[in-house]
Amino acid sequence: MSNKVAIFDSSLRDGAQAEGISFSVEDKLKILELLDDHGVDYIEAGNPGSNPKDLEFFARVKSMTLKHARLAAFGSTRRRDIKVEQDSNVQSLLLADTPVIVIFGKSWDFHVTEIIRTSLEENLSMIRDTLAFFKAKGKEVIYDAEHFFDGYKHNPEYAVRSLQAAVDGGADVLVLCDTNGGTFPSEVASIVRKLAALFSVPIGIHAHNDCGMAVANSVLAVENGARHVQGTYIGFGERCGNANLSTIIANLGVKRGFECLPAGQYKNITRMARHIAAVSNVALNERDPFVGNCAFAHKGGMHIDGVNKAAHSFEHINPELVGGQRRFLMSEVSGRRMILEKIWEVDASITKDDAVTDSIVKRLKELEHEGYQFEGAESTFELVIRKQLGKYRPFFELEHFRIIGEQPTNGDYGSSAIIKVKVDGKSEITAAEGDGPVHALDCALRKALDRFYPELSNVHLTDYKVRVINGRDATAAKVRVLLQSTDGDSVWTTVGVSTDIIEASWIALVDSIEYKLLKLEEARVVA
Amino acid sequence: MSNKVAIFDSSLRDGAQAEGISFSVEDKLKILELLDDHGVDYIEAGNPGSNPKDLEFFARVKSMTLKHARLAAFGSTRRRDIKVEQDSNVQSLLLADTPVIVIFGKSWDFHVTEIIRTSLEENLSMIRDTLAFFKAKGKEVIYDAEHFFDGYKHNPEYAVRSLQAAVDGGADVLVLCDTNGGTFPSEVASIVRKLAALFSVPIGIHAHNDCGMAVANSVLAVENGARHVQGTYIGFGERCGNANLSTIIANLGVKRGFECLPAGQYKNITRMARHIAAVSNVALNERDPFVGNCAFAHKGGMHIDGVNKAAHSFEHINPELVGGQRRFLMSEVSGRRMILEKIWEVDASITKDDAVTDSIVKRLKELEHEGYQFEGAESTFELVIRKQLGKYRPFFELEHFRIIGEQPTNGDYGSSAIIKVKVDGKSEITAAEGDGPVHALDCALRKALDRFYPELSNVHLTDYKVRVINGRDATAAKVRVLLQSTDGDSVWTTVGVSTDIIEASWIALVDSIEYKLLKLEEARVVA
Repeated sequence: MSNKVAIFDSSLRDGAQAEGISFSVEDKLKILELLDDHGVDYIEAGNPGSNPKDLEFFARVKSMTLKHARLAAFGSTRRRDIKVEQDSNVQSLLLADTPVIVIFGKSWDFHVTEIIRTSLEENLSMIRDTLAFFKAKGKEVIYDAEHFFDGYKHNPEYAVRSLQAAVDGGADVLVLCDTNGGTFPSEVASIVRKLAALFSVPIGIHAHNDCGMAVANSVLAVENGARHVQGTYIGFGERCGNANLSTIIANLGVKRGFECLPAGQYKNITRMARHIAAVSNVALNERDPFVGNCAFAHKGGMHIDGVNKAAHSFEHINPELVGGQRRFLMSEVSGRRMILEKIWEVDASITKDDAVTDSIVKRLKELEHEGYQFEGAESTFELVIRKQLGKYRPFFELEHFRIIGEQPTNGDYGSSAIIKVKVDGKSEITAAEGDGPVHALDCALRKALDRFYPELSNVHLTDYKVRVINGRDATAAKVRVLLQSTDGDSVWTTVGVSTDIIEASWIALVDSIEYKLLKLEEARVVA
Repeated sequence: MSNKVAIFDSSLRDGAQAEGISFSVEDKLKILELLDDHGVDYIEAGNPGSNPKDLEFFARVKSMTLKHARLAAFGSTRRRDIKVEQDSNVQSLLLADTPVIVIFGKSWDFHVTEIIRTSLEENLSMIRDTLAFFKAKGKEVIYDAEHFFDGYKHNPEYAVRSLQAAVDGGADVLVLCDTNGGTFPSEVASIVRKLAALFSVPIGIHAHNDCGMAVANSVLAVENGARHVQGTYIGFGERCGNANLSTIIANLGVKRGFECLPAGQYKNITRMARHIAAVSNVALNERDPFVGNCAFAHKGGMHIDGVNKAAHSFEHINPELVGGQRRFLMSEVSGRRMILEKIWEVDASITKDDAVTDSIVKRLKELEHEGYQFEGAESTFELVIRKQLGKYRPFFELEHFRIIGEQPTNGDYGSSAIIKVKVDGKSEITAAEGDGPVHALDCALRKALDRFYPELSNVHLTDYKVRVINGRDATAAKVRVLLQSTDGDSVWTTVGVSTDIIEASWIALVDSIEYKLLKLEEARVVA
């Protein structure tokens, strides 16, 4: 059996069913381009029968030449008791003018009689006729057997007959769908194994995550003979989402030697996941396997010690294979060795016996004692090291700022900030309003710096976390603020601590901007 | 074989290894209480040998009586070449004074020789001696076989011998750990099946989610003979997290009839997950199976139509079984029964058909839509109900307040607040400084009210939590502030939401004070 597993991404179709997802045509074109560059085999990009806006997208896409992927449009079998060519959905699918058509039909007898309310025989004709129609038009036709596993468990004979109808209609792939996401891995394994033995047409899997097992179901399907996997790249989709393709590709392609992507593409998995999250306007779950920021982050002292002795002792793969990075989280247990590795990223000539190493360790201890925590705040950590090494210059000077929050007698609560900064002897004073004091301060600072550093315009904050360090004194306790920033490509995190939330935010904000300016300066030096 | 699956929660130990998790002793006690009420069998609450702060926790916990759960402390086997009783970790475990001790040891020959660097025979003695020591002290001893699956794949004979050493030492359970999270479900199934046949001591599973398959691995382990499942309730843990127990309990207990919790507790799974997330100060992933807000949310038109015809057509379980709610994303329905129970606490005469019940449900929906969340903020919830029932009067009126935060050119950052309030027609204006704007406001408000309500003098805030609701817009996102207050006897929690952290804090602060004054008034009426 071939090692090739076709990867079918439905971020733009099934993914669009997720709560909170709403793509513009531009978003869809961007994601299409990303997935195509990445070497995904099929991209399902719309359901033109149920969403007329998708036709606009398919019209726009005609001018594009895809390098690798084949474009697919998704739709239902013809309706009951009419001819295929009279069905409006079928007509919309033809208008989409894609090389691949995905037709879904019913495999579960209960759905045939109770939901679409027709006879079991008519349903088989609907499947057969619709596929044959598109095959006659020269299309590659993928058949999605909706609720296949539920159907098979209730009435295996009818479920198999529905697949046979698809084969008779000319299906190129038979995709077994766990539409409700309720099927267990042991069931998927045994059912796929039987079906793969029964049909010579390739078997595919389409899993949903309602039991938290969509990835496992997809992997087990492939281990038992499926060679086509449907999902969405970062897992979003209706309810709990579709099978997460980034995880599946890493599992099958990197860990098991299946061919899921062109060979050079596995190392782009992490970047691809971040990019798709950004375009889709969703936050990537940082605990996601392989691609999340925590995926190769070690906190426990014994684990860190083990990884330093032999990486595979506490890592199931080398993070570089998926474009990820090992991170040792700075915590109470962080040792000198870890700090040295961070120092070497700034200056490889420093040794553990240098006086400056001591001064860095001492400074970090002081900051930790004040309530700093550097896990997930590597950018501030790097700035601390640079300051000790003398490899730091301030990019601006604060003269003063003032924040005012007002609840007037009649009117809405409002926050504003006034700030005055100096760069190379030139001062700039400005003010801004914001949704809250930190937002007002953030806006005012960027506005004041714009004249000096216009390249900061594409930087924005993507996350803001506040942690009260010592709950005993409540509002008088120290707070730790973590800011995550991005320029669209990379992501960095900074931290500030103070008894005052505004001051803590300010410290983290300054680090965020200085870190970006530092990286820009380094890039210019290299160029 | 018994249907009982022991549930072992390690949120407080392995969960604390997660990036961003840092529990106070109060947080740990709260989570312990929640899990015990829920009927979890084992709660692993610390690693006293590596974290001395955990001993403080175990000392505090001694005064509590648990209803159902057995408390466990976690630690390593003795170190090489010393006697058990001379080992400092072992001594710390004894000091923890828990009925259950979890000992982890090495099963993977490579780890024995290369990481802890001892002989294969000495490692077996370390396991056997340590377990025998704790058994002789009358403890229940759970043996965690670290890296068991990796070890078994490399050297099955030695891995089995390491388990036999644990059995010889008196282990009550043999837990097979997928420490690096790299094992596939098909491997877990076949290895667990073999081990369950080999040993008469019960087999457990401890899975990590690095391949996105920790839940499936746990479920397959149970299907193949394991009867003890370790994980963390909402899945946080080192790197990509531990196996998510809320998902596993729903899969095994609700869908497969295994006994994981006391019968009446399954319907509390959703509430429990939210509560633990709130105390842990992490955002629950709304796409999490069963417990996420999206888990039973239908967006696609055909799915909504199908669910209306027959719920199981597009739902794998009835959401009520886990305390969840079906949501149609355009027209939401409510958890009426739960709300009614809260209403009855204020006024037992209200029925579900009263118009006021509708108005309360509507108001709660509005607030939830704005970002409110009432789990862990029951006092605000009660005030909302009272306001709708007309059983509320304001205890004071705000005229205005102003908060000023200043970073002068030469000097420290400072926050101050001016406030003017009115009670029974009498105004009071005052000002206060504070460590941060919320503290300044809190101090100023209490100072202004002191003249009218001197009984507030013993009230103070004990916890202050801030959660960014939607990370996308960072500092411009909405924030939810949770305040915990106490008067020395009771503790109550209130919540406020706004795009402005000061306004959100103000809302929660007002609720906190009004709630206390309300309870004082009620006490006077009863007296």
